[in-house]
Amino acid sequence: MKFQPVLDEIDAEIRPLLGAGGTVASYIPALARVPAAQFGMALRTCDGQEAHAGDANKPFSIQSVSKLFTLTLAMQRLGEALWERIGREPSGNPFNSLVQLENEQGKPRNPFINAGAIAVADRLLSLFGREAKTDVLELMNSLTGDPISFDVEVAASEAATGYRNYALANFMKSFGKLDNDVETVLDMYFHQCALSMSCVQLARAAGYLCRDGVHPWAPGVNLLTERQTRRINSLMLTCGTYDAAGEFAFRIGLPCKSGVGGGIVAVVPDQLTLAVWSPALDATGNSLLGMKALELFVTKTGLSVF
Amino acid sequence: MKFQPVLDEIDAEIRPLLGAGGTVASYIPALARVPAAQFGMALRTCDGQEAHAGDANKPFSIQSVSKLFTLTLAMQRLGEALWERIGREPSGNPFNSLVQLENEQGKPRNPFINAGAIAVADRLLSLFGREAKTDVLELMNSLTGDPISFDVEVAASEAATGYRNYALANFMKSFGKLDNDVETVLDMYFHQCALSMSCVQLARAAGYLCRDGVHPWAPGVNLLTERQTRRINSLMLTCGTYDAAGEFAFRIGLPCKSGVGGGIVAVVPDQLTLAVWSPALDATGNSLLGMKALELFVTKTGLSVF
Amino acid sequence: MKFQPVLDEIDAEIRPLLGAGGTVASYIPALARVPAAQFGMALRTCDGQEAHAGDANKPFSIQSVSKLFTLTLAMQRLGEALWERIGREPSGNPFNSLVQLENEQGKPRNPFINAGAIAVADRLLSLFGREAKTDVLELMNSLTGDPISFDVEVAASEAATGYRNYALANFMKSFGKLDNDVETVLDMYFHQCALSMSCVQLARAAGYLCRDGVHPWAPGVNLLTERQTRRINSLMLTCGTYDAAGEFAFRIGLPCKSGVGGGIVAVVPDQLTLAVWSPALDATGNSLLGMKALELFVTKTGLSVF
Amino acid sequence: MKFQPVLDEIDAEIRPLLGAGGTVASYIPALARVPAAQFGMALRTCDGQEAHAGDANKPFSIQSVSKLFTLTLAMQRLGEALWERIGREPSGNPFNSLVQLENEQGKPRNPFINAGAIAVADRLLSLFGREAKTDVLELMNSLTGDPISFDVEVAASEAATGYRNYALANFMKSFGKLDNDVETVLDMYFHQCALSMSCVQLARAAGYLCRDGVHPWAPGVNLLTERQTRRINSLMLTCGTYDAAGEFAFRIGLPCKSGVGGGIVAVVPDQLTLAVWSPALDATGNSLLGMKALELFVTKTGLSVF
Repeated sequence: MKFQPVLDEIDAEIRPLLGAGGTVASYIPALARVPAAQFGMALRTCDGQEAHAGDANKPFSIQSVSKLFTLTLAMQRLGEALWERIGREPSGNPFNSLVQLENEQGKPRNPFINAGAIAVADRLLSLFGREAKTDVLELMNSLTGDPISFDVEVAASEAATGYRNYALANFMKSFGKLDNDVETVLDMYFHQCALSMSCVQLARAAGYLCRDGVHPWAPGVNLLTERQTRRINSLMLTCGTYDAAGEFAFRIGLPCKSGVGGGIVAVVPDQLTLAVWSPALDATGNSLLGMKALELFVTKTGLSVF
Repeated sequence: MKFQPVLDEIDAEIRPLLGAGGTVASYIPALARVPAAQFGMALRTCDGQEAHAGDANKPFSIQSVSKLFTLTLAMQRLGEALWERIGREPSGNPFNSLVQLENEQGKPRNPFINAGAIAVADRLLSLFGREAKTDVLELMNSLTGDPISFDVEVAASEAATGYRNYALANFMKSFGKLDNDVETVLDMYFHQCALSMSCVQLARAAGYLCRDGVHPWAPGVNLLTERQTRRINSLMLTCGTYDAAGEFAFRIGLPCKSGVGGGIVAVVPDQLTLAVWSPALDATGNSLLGMKALELFVTKTGLSVF
Repeated sequence: MKFQPVLDEIDAEIRPLLGAGGTVASYIPALARVPAAQFGMALRTCDGQEAHAGDANKPFSIQSVSKLFTLTLAMQRLGEALWERIGREPSGNPFNSLVQLENEQGKPRNPFINAGAIAVADRLLSLFGREAKTDVLELMNSLTGDPISFDVEVAASEAATGYRNYALANFMKSFGKLDNDVETVLDMYFHQCALSMSCVQLARAAGYLCRDGVHPWAPGVNLLTERQTRRINSLMLTCGTYDAAGEFAFRIGLPCKSGVGGGIVAVVPDQLTLAVWSPALDATGNSLLGMKALELFVTKTGLSVF
Repeated sequence: MKFQPVLDEIDAEIRPLLGAGGTVASYIPALARVPAAQFGMALRTCDGQEAHAGDANKPFSIQSVSKLFTLTLAMQRLGEALWERIGREPSGNPFNSLVQLENEQGKPRNPFINAGAIAVADRLLSLFGREAKTDVLELMNSLTGDPISFDVEVAASEAATGYRNYALANFMKSFGKLDNDVETVLDMYFHQCALSMSCVQLARAAGYLCRDGVHPWAPGVNLLTERQTRRINSLMLTCGTYDAAGEFAFRIGLPCKSGVGGGIVAVVPDQLTLAVWSPALDATGNSLLGMKALELFVTKTGLSVF
């Protein structure tokens, strides 16, 4: 299948809708001032075909999409041991809820809610020490072939105002579920959320998820086993999009991971990875036009897992 | 692909494990006395190939697997209006929890937890009146080509001791979310759970789920639209197996609906439907060897959505 | 102290406020049609002085005030064993919540929330069998010297529409915390709530609560021990007025038990018992002018425990 | 009544029980190493009679008992405005729970759970600025006539390991319910908990609570109005002793405030204030022998509000 025409069509359908709905994340100034009326999309197939449309090369704050990559690093190194501290089931609660954490003694339901990603960050720090942030950057560089960096203003903003995340981290610490300092863990977490990447870079970086774990640019290198890759894809489908996992599974039918910066990464297993970006969010915190674009993609290509 | 050898292999691997773990549902005598050491499996492909192994023709109490079929009837008749009373997201809570129902004013999270299926039963009663039970039987007869019946002893047992379900139904009624009498709604619900079917019958009956909604025996008849069928498959994947949806998505990677009678129906979209049965359950209420058999099936055939 | 002038003053201050705020309980027709603009008050001291004002002799539905008397019967007969099934701490949740019950395995927090009173009714049925309702009436007759009866229309209304209470009772039954049939237990509970009594009768009936457990008319008869009486008074103060226990403790500072019929019984330990009635309720389900009248009483007499 | 003989009797009855049960708070080293087998008791009547027994002059960490005094300061200055941010009802949840806080948008149920006291500390900082800690010390000096100080080791320990309190404070901050820095608020809170006082000092300091708000040593000075004092006493009774308010109300029947250092302050309105101390705690976090001693006191003197 030729994908460039598909993306062009989607871009043509989405562009008139820009600015018509949704709200840009406003909890930190660096995100709040991103113009809403932007849209980009990019994909890369397993056999190396690329396509892109709109603002596909414009970097944005990937936010929770980063949870994919830190989870990957942690699974690489820890294998099954990772799951002693983190569950793998949908939470049924808001992404930043503390209720379930209290009832379940500080063990987060899955690695894609904030508490779970904070627990993953803690594991990475125990593995890599203070260099953990560098290891994340190195992974992103390797996965994209580009020099990826943290948006330090975004990271500083999160650190200055991320009270809910401080609450989550301290709460887990109170249950003995974090080994490192709360400050250090959150510094790591806020930086990973502040990774600045474009759709093209994200579509490339996620490539191992449609290749049974094989590095997108180095065919001989397995980042993850086939089984671990399936684990991530299934977690994306059941838990990757905040409170809208059921809606995504139905409307899009692909494993997706979204972020409040307006980015969404989607996986068509064995075929391609896809990234969309549009900063205006719906009530569930997912990109309004990003979802729309993915839905159009699935409709036009028939590429859904269901 | 020839499936009969695959099922024979699975049967050979599962049989030595019979009786080694898990517990038969014990909350009603009619289920408690089912011998644990039984296993059956059956599948039917979109082009009519059938295969089966073990106790594939032995009828068992399908219990929550019935939620698939009543949901289908309700979607047929009500379309989108069904979702005014029932959500479509994972609950993150036990299948019979009342907590979320209280916080969400009596609206069940999805049609596959008990509260949701009770709400579906209420909708069916409003549509079909007292004949609703007959309509369910007629659907099952049509889907299997066999005369399907309720196990009246099981239904009576559920009615006599199903206090938690009485609590759920009265609770929804107190929020004005059931239109019919609690007794009538639960009579319907207890009967649907008491449907007695074999793996062969279930694999055939679910056939429309791998055919984009087309009746398994009547190619010209659409039970559901393609879109509605996708909705059901995605709900099965995210919510179909109690608290173990994440684990099923990972280990099996197929839309599944399980029941405490030990049955599980699985869908390989566009290819086949599959039913397994083994009465001993794991701690999440899913058939222990049923899950194992599905996992073997996916491993041997590579047929997983991820 | 002469109390008749105090009650006359209060009546004069309350009467202009009649009809100005609050809402009559509307969940059953028999309560909904009670005219809001009524007010009565009565007291009886330990040495037999009586005083009353307004509609003090008009019978009303005592509703949850009845929980006092069934608790008394249960404590008489069961002693400490009663507390195996019922807690004694404030719930911090609405009177008809199921959430806490789920988290605490069907054990109600205290005997003054609905779940707790239903558990008490179950205990009474186990003690007295089908005659339990008669035993309640006999207690009330003995405590008042009048022939007290159930308002059968109110009881029938509650039975027809009390879905939340059916949910609570079935929920406890599902945890094995009720020994009798749900229907029988609720029949008992709905009847006790439908006791029809006046302020004068209630003030007299509660007299043992200011007499260390001694029968209000039979000085030689102990209904309860001094210690048990203190237990009831302390439960009234901490749990007797739905979600407003803290507010009652502050504004009134007396052990109180309220009902949605608009009645409130208050105890001044060692001195007197007091009943007020006005059907219009505030947002917490307590009689708006009843609270006001009690507050005036405490201010005018200085009779508060704090 | 002469109280010294009463306290001597109680001391004689308690002393043989020392070391027999309960556990010293162990969450910080400075508390964990306090020898369990200590007991002290002191009282001061409204007319100046004093009595004491055992280790009545030994200073200990008053912990949550301090919530009484910071609440007093806040009520003095803010009057009713204080209650915009803090509720006044029992919580029904553990003292350090975050669940209710999430459901109620960061508004603590009452000033005696940790979240509530942290909110009070925030109010004091807004009123007094960085001098707030000094103002607390000045109040304590004035109330006791002694130079009271913070145990800086205890305060430092709490700051180093008080993750749950950091979680609570950050959580409230995320709801916009704290005006000051989390660090500053907790520094204040950890210091107040680290006040080091003896039973004699506490019994004297709380004296305004049995004097309708009049300063215990300065008859012409009102710390609080009579009404405000009643508010505090009623809050102590309904919320002052963690999850055991119902049990305290019954067994002791006096407004009490306890701390995990093993201290408890009790008020007999219009008559006296009382302090007990014994470091070994029961499962609810209240001093085991402290409760026993208060119970003996009430039994021997008949001084209970019920």
